[in-house]
Amino acid sequence: MRVRYAETDQMGVVYYSNYFVWFEVARTDLLRHEGCSYKDMEADGFSLPVVEAHCDYKQSARYDEDVEIRTSGVLLSPVRVRFEYEVVRPADTAVLAEGHTVHAVLDKSGKPRRLPDRIRELFA
Amino acid sequence: MRVRYAETDQMGVVYYSNYFVWFEVARTDLLRHEGCSYKDMEADGFSLPVVEAHCDYKQSARYDEDVEIRTSGVLLSPVRVRFEYEVVRPADTAVLAEGHTVHAVLDKSGKPRRLPDRIRELFA
Amino acid sequence: MRVRYAETDQMGVVYYSNYFVWFEVARTDLLRHEGCSYKDMEADGFSLPVVEAHCDYKQSARYDEDVEIRTSGVLLSPVRVRFEYEVVRPADTAVLAEGHTVHAVLDKSGKPRRLPDRIRELFA
Amino acid sequence: MRVRYAETDQMGVVYYSNYFVWFEVARTDLLRHEGCSYKDMEADGFSLPVVEAHCDYKQSARYDEDVEIRTSGVLLSPVRVRFEYEVVRPADTAVLAEGHTVHAVLDKSGKPRRLPDRIRELFA
Repeated sequence: MRVRYAETDQMGVVYYSNYFVWFEVARTDLLRHEGCSYKDMEADGFSLPVVEAHCDYKQSARYDEDVEIRTSGVLLSPVRVRFEYEVVRPADTAVLAEGHTVHAVLDKSGKPRRLPDRIRELFA
Repeated sequence: MRVRYAETDQMGVVYYSNYFVWFEVARTDLLRHEGCSYKDMEADGFSLPVVEAHCDYKQSARYDEDVEIRTSGVLLSPVRVRFEYEVVRPADTAVLAEGHTVHAVLDKSGKPRRLPDRIRELFA
Repeated sequence: MRVRYAETDQMGVVYYSNYFVWFEVARTDLLRHEGCSYKDMEADGFSLPVVEAHCDYKQSARYDEDVEIRTSGVLLSPVRVRFEYEVVRPADTAVLAEGHTVHAVLDKSGKPRRLPDRIRELFA
Repeated sequence: MRVRYAETDQMGVVYYSNYFVWFEVARTDLLRHEGCSYKDMEADGFSLPVVEAHCDYKQSARYDEDVEIRTSGVLLSPVRVRFEYEVVRPADTAVLAEGHTVHAVLDKSGKPRRLPDRIRELFA
């Protein structure tokens, strides 16, 4: 992922809330890579709203840099999942940030719903 | 409206796409002020998707400045409206930007729909 | 603060990273209210980069709702401050989210720098 | 480019200002592809602030869709350039939007500055 100009602020670095946008891109890519797109999950009546988000910032990402987001998923319970993220700058392998998000698994009516087995297998 | 840090970029000024977000805030405020909130319009099955957006940038808005958006609406046809915007810095009355947006008036199925008379009266 | 259309996502609620933008607006307002604008602090060579950000989401904020951000600051050390936030919907006093951010206090060269006494007094 | 969840709004489509962020990504990629990164141009004391931005929206881009931005640059004068954009959905080759931006060419002090020959050659 390459840092967009729009993502910088006047400090000359990436504005802190944008890391959470990157986290979303990373977890979506992880799900898609596992054959389970979030778009299809929504079409099947699932949603994964964020109930907790956290990020520790180590070094600043800058405009036009390549950054890589390493992501993994953990099943906390049948109706709750956690994704962990590491933002790395491949140029020098520096870890720029680490974070996590926790998501409820809900059905269309907003009630907790167990993830299908197929998807649960994706999580450690 | 006060310029948010998130809205700046590393040039130290407001990133250009954010003026369009301000335009949206301004036209929503105009509608609400006229007793016709966009939220209620959506609940009534209307939507006003943007079909054209334009902005001329004169001077840069900067972090923490107060800016004022002057807005007016024009009915182009029963199913098309245009909003015009002027971004002014009250501190020195400088005009920072001017722009407009054109919107289709659609019903829930995405077909053109005439605005109710009550709302058409709001437009010049 | 009124929720902007731009801040919603296709789930129909405020996208999760936007709460961190609101946090920034709230802490900036707090500082300004205490006679110490962040803009002036930057002009004096200080910066307060975020080193940690956290948010717990309780209920969703929706388009056009009024939300209120309650904020307080705590001095963790002479060179580190923490802000705490509560996002409240005044209409029913529901707490929509709670979060915090931790900031380093740096000088222009990026080295830790003690906050001036005048500003330290603002923090509990 | 794949549409991010953050880029959608509650209408279920990409929020209109985000096309201008994509335009920036596309013109940056075009410059880089031509061996002339905008980052380097800034380091050399150039800036290309936007003085005009325009977009015509034809069809909505949706979450998780792949979109392609076709871009070309035109030299309007030695100190003014124009980029044109077409947002295409490769899946069905539909043109979702067309737009352009006009940029001043400035030096560090904010005065108009001629683009170096090497860079002017990139423009039609």
